[in-house]
Amino acid sequence: MPSPKIRFDIITLFPPIFPGYLGESLLAKAIERGQVEVHIHNLRDWSTDKHHKVDAPPYGGGPGMLIQVQPVVDCVEQVRKLAPEPGQLLLMSPQGETLKQSLVGELAESSRLILLCGRYEGFDQRVIEILQPREISLGDFVLNGGEVAAMAIIDAAIRLVPSVLGDERSAVEDSFSDEALLEFPQYTRPREFRGHSVPEILLGGNHQQIAAWRAAQRVERTHDRRRDLL
Amino acid sequence: MPSPKIRFDIITLFPPIFPGYLGESLLAKAIERGQVEVHIHNLRDWSTDKHHKVDAPPYGGGPGMLIQVQPVVDCVEQVRKLAPEPGQLLLMSPQGETLKQSLVGELAESSRLILLCGRYEGFDQRVIEILQPREISLGDFVLNGGEVAAMAIIDAAIRLVPSVLGDERSAVEDSFSDEALLEFPQYTRPREFRGHSVPEILLGGNHQQIAAWRAAQRVERTHDRRRDLL
Repeated sequence: MPSPKIRFDIITLFPPIFPGYLGESLLAKAIERGQVEVHIHNLRDWSTDKHHKVDAPPYGGGPGMLIQVQPVVDCVEQVRKLAPEPGQLLLMSPQGETLKQSLVGELAESSRLILLCGRYEGFDQRVIEILQPREISLGDFVLNGGEVAAMAIIDAAIRLVPSVLGDERSAVEDSFSDEALLEFPQYTRPREFRGHSVPEILLGGNHQQIAAWRAAQRVERTHDRRRDLL
Repeated sequence: MPSPKIRFDIITLFPPIFPGYLGESLLAKAIERGQVEVHIHNLRDWSTDKHHKVDAPPYGGGPGMLIQVQPVVDCVEQVRKLAPEPGQLLLMSPQGETLKQSLVGELAESSRLILLCGRYEGFDQRVIEILQPREISLGDFVLNGGEVAAMAIIDAAIRLVPSVLGDERSAVEDSFSDEALLEFPQYTRPREFRGHSVPEILLGGNHQQIAAWRAAQRVERTHDRRRDLL
């Protein structure tokens, strides 16, 4: 069996979130074929508290609870040792750099990514001082935890692992993958549905005309919806 | 029992992705308390094909498969009828408007959101012409499908449903929720870990000084990391 192309280690307080996601579609197939490995680690297993607590209130006051530094540092250090390559540590946080396709491309070149998922009000700042993770944000909105952000990184990264996608052209032609233009509209069977027809040009079989029409649609759509990309 | 504050209907080709996510943490508690309802619908159930196929190759050529218009339109029309309020239809797509906390706030005011998740190369364009969904993008990167984006919307929106969060101040004080500044660093027990100490000011108990320090940290951090927000 060839060695896997990319290994993910997810550190979370809610391991049961993941199996459903890991068991479906492209990701399940990539795991089955050995192109992707995903390991889930329960942060609570590194708690030294007899009730497996990992959180405590913030110094200086304020709402909610923070994840304590000790279980996180101990966990990451031990998880790193589970494979020869220590891997790149990513911390999902609204304070981080915003995920973009270019960053996905960079991450997908790693052979190992360790994804640290926060919950509650976040981590004790010393987690960041000591472990110096790369902090990554999904966007300018607040999630309940890093788990959904971790799934987004995995979902986006595995598309770029060679041969995970059935047809390699797909990843190249998607929005954001080549030039910064949105995708052209697409149509499939039937030719007509409730009075809505497929554009004639797509049915004609003139591939040069079709390519020109699609290129024009990309520019027009990007101009209408995302002028910031132009 | 009080009527739920928000109802989500998820339309997907991969229903098993969701139960793990729905069964954990804040979301599970909100569902249990009747503040949030989530219903999953398998798009394949609306296929008229004997093999339950819902995809076909694009007219005009190109890689991959598209989701056909008929099952999607029929499914959305029937799902809408499952509750008195037809709900707002959202289509997860990299072509859509980018999710931001302000958009999350708008969505969280709906009593019903129907989340349509694409896969493969996306939908036949007539899905959009006929159903006129609000198209929403998680960011400028490409996912394998809309499922992770749907989870992100649910995760972000339920935080804003009154009383879902244990302490309502939490949502207000998070990054992006009040002003466009990142959060201040936070610390919790123990006071010292591997030579890294909690800043003295947080231990002093002078709440005015602490508030001033935190405000300064927010500005400094935003300036260092996300000057675009200032």
